[in-house]
Amino acid sequence: MTITITAFTASPDRGRGLARDMPVRWALEEVGQYYDIRLVSFKEMKEPAHLAHQPFGQIPTYEEDGLVLFESGAIVLHIAGRYPGLLSDEENARARAIAWIFAAQATVEPPIVERETAGFLEQDRVWHEQRLPLMEERIETRLAQLSARLGEADWLQGAFSAGDLVMVSVLRRLNGSPLLNAFPNLLAYAARGEARPAFKRAFAAQLAVFERRSAEV
Amino acid sequence: MTITITAFTASPDRGRGLARDMPVRWALEEVGQYYDIRLVSFKEMKEPAHLAHQPFGQIPTYEEDGLVLFESGAIVLHIAGRYPGLLSDEENARARAIAWIFAAQATVEPPIVERETAGFLEQDRVWHEQRLPLMEERIETRLAQLSARLGEADWLQGAFSAGDLVMVSVLRRLNGSPLLNAFPNLLAYAARGEARPAFKRAFAAQLAVFERRSAEV
Repeated sequence: MTITITAFTASPDRGRGLARDMPVRWALEEVGQYYDIRLVSFKEMKEPAHLAHQPFGQIPTYEEDGLVLFESGAIVLHIAGRYPGLLSDEENARARAIAWIFAAQATVEPPIVERETAGFLEQDRVWHEQRLPLMEERIETRLAQLSARLGEADWLQGAFSAGDLVMVSVLRRLNGSPLLNAFPNLLAYAARGEARPAFKRAFAAQLAVFERRSAEV
Repeated sequence: MTITITAFTASPDRGRGLARDMPVRWALEEVGQYYDIRLVSFKEMKEPAHLAHQPFGQIPTYEEDGLVLFESGAIVLHIAGRYPGLLSDEENARARAIAWIFAAQATVEPPIVERETAGFLEQDRVWHEQRLPLMEERIETRLAQLSARLGEADWLQGAFSAGDLVMVSVLRRLNGSPLLNAFPNLLAYAARGEARPAFKRAFAAQLAVFERRSAEV
């Protein structure tokens, strides 16, 4: 069975591994599944062929025999359900790890993305500077709560799981930010994720796309 | 086995069924599982006993023998996985329905919640009026994409699923808004969800909490 995922032809993150193909690549590396990549341009992402796979015109998509999926959280969960390595065999532990995938995407990520979006789209507005502390306060609240829960543990729910994979992927959007640096246990947690061999292979693969593209342009 | 979920003692939506216990109640009604409710005040939500169950100090939580879960999407998925009625038995159809849970919570909902949050927290700021059209444009983009995908279908992925349950719950945040009214197929889709007997039972149950509280205060 061949797995094919889509990624940006020219990722706006310039190879920093912040695009949403990264958690999917990472998950596939954790479970040891080979995958093909199909690169799509911003123009192609809005065309019917891609929209048939991804109704919101985004990446990544995931294809295997007879199945097309979208939404990085759903794809990571699908991979984690199909191959061993990312979810416990024990039913309750599985459910708890899956809750962390949702917490990462539905609770921790939105205020982070809101600040990023404002940075792209509202930076030239007179209010942007005044709104920044409001947005940062919302991020800080979530990080403080996550930090309190994690405590001194290595991972959120026993052994490393798909929940950690997605949460670390979200926290990486704050790499280098004083917001994240204020929570040493979250910094160490993200670093533990980034130190995993599967993460490194996934990161190198997405960086190679960017570097090849840079060499061509 | 007893299922207990938490909900607001005094829901800020005043019984409109927009709090996040609503999709969980709806899912439990769809699968015909009885549940107990434990009401928590805003003060109790920030106390250690609740934070041990819900690290972000929110509702709902879900408890059954030996398992405590949080995040409404994760709880709905857990219910849908445990009891028949909300997910197909066919593996690929299941994965596609689950992708819609993520799409609802990670892609469609964030711009809607951003506008709500701004309405609460930034309404007195000079920039609020100018930001409104920017925020509404982001919501409109997502609704247009969702509308295009739904087309004339009754549900997003074949039969009614947990994905529809969560998506309709998200769209209901826009009830009465011109943003939603501009897409007749999405309006009809949300109305089909609200017409389900399980929805009605869940809605009545959460409304009763609000009405009892109003009578007491």
